[in-house]
Amino acid sequence: MRYRKIPDETVRRLPIYLRGLLFLSEQGQQNVSSRNLADFLGVNPWQIRKDFSYFGGFGTRGVGYKIENLAKQINKILKLDVVHKVALVGVGNLGLVVLAYPGFRIYGFDIAAAFDIDSKKVGRKVKDITIEDASNLGTLKKRKINLAIIAVHRGAAQETADALVKAGVKGILNFSPCYITVPKKVKVITIDIAMDLARLPYYMPAS
Amino acid sequence: MRYRKIPDETVRRLPIYLRGLLFLSEQGQQNVSSRNLADFLGVNPWQIRKDFSYFGGFGTRGVGYKIENLAKQINKILKLDVVHKVALVGVGNLGLVVLAYPGFRIYGFDIAAAFDIDSKKVGRKVKDITIEDASNLGTLKKRKINLAIIAVHRGAAQETADALVKAGVKGILNFSPCYITVPKKVKVITIDIAMDLARLPYYMPAS
Repeated sequence: MRYRKIPDETVRRLPIYLRGLLFLSEQGQQNVSSRNLADFLGVNPWQIRKDFSYFGGFGTRGVGYKIENLAKQINKILKLDVVHKVALVGVGNLGLVVLAYPGFRIYGFDIAAAFDIDSKKVGRKVKDITIEDASNLGTLKKRKINLAIIAVHRGAAQETADALVKAGVKGILNFSPCYITVPKKVKVITIDIAMDLARLPYYMPAS
Repeated sequence: MRYRKIPDETVRRLPIYLRGLLFLSEQGQQNVSSRNLADFLGVNPWQIRKDFSYFGGFGTRGVGYKIENLAKQINKILKLDVVHKVALVGVGNLGLVVLAYPGFRIYGFDIAAAFDIDSKKVGRKVKDITIEDASNLGTLKKRKINLAIIAVHRGAAQETADALVKAGVKGILNFSPCYITVPKKVKVITIDIAMDLARLPYYMPAS
């Protein structure tokens, strides 16, 4: 079964729902109404119902959604029902945060390799991962790693992206605060923490 | 003039447009069509036109949007037309990333204070900011700092949020991978870098 027509905005919210569902499941809950899930996550119930309707995830009136089924379905849609190996490029402060981040496992990600250009860092071990020289990026295809996180400084972001594309990477999470250009077949998501902060004042009362 | 009815999803995208517009302006460009802006940012042109229509930001056929005017308008809507002072709580690896991050200035943010509970860190200077003891959080109101970034470990996130709310903070950017509870008058945006990664596999070709 293919789910071709899910809008990007819904895809963006599915991991939020998934994390909430997994959390509730851990608490021993088996069913949840769209209203309770919405309250818990701080989103609109109608939005949840609309998002779930794209893949036929209808709840039962009075019972709500079966948490386990729904989580399984979202996992499948997001193609998170297999373990994805991920490469990290850049082991500065941000790279260290990424390596220490506990949240990747929830979605089945395995940070399997880390690269840097600094010869002082190469060979060092962080969380069971030995930092490799960035010139080794070409080995990613052979190692079946097709996802990467860019945590290098701004000036090195584009050449890093180029090297990753050349190495067969199909998805990039970019933390460098700049635009990078890749072929259409590669998906890039750029994270700018300032952008998230920029939404806050809108919601604050005039003081 | 109030802009009460802008949907959250549009508010989420406005900083993306704003950053793109400021970038194009720096390049010397004065006008941009929704199509070109969309291509540049990797979003849909109709989405841009729809988002801009909420605040009457209509372009001129054949000329497009005046970049400077539009950026000014978005700045005003997002209440970014004044400098916002921001406090950072937690100066670990992630906190150091935040302090070094160049992207905040674009939106007029000034990271004005940093706090930690580690007595070895208190008193140290990072980027002209002297790290203060977390017991000083109560001084934020007097210092007119009502935005904060939480970069503490998961176990300390809720008590940090409680202390920030008590200190009069109205907006929190939360980097701890956990849910925090605050009164309704306070806006929290939680960043989970794993969640962004979780969107990537959906877009990748089956291999």
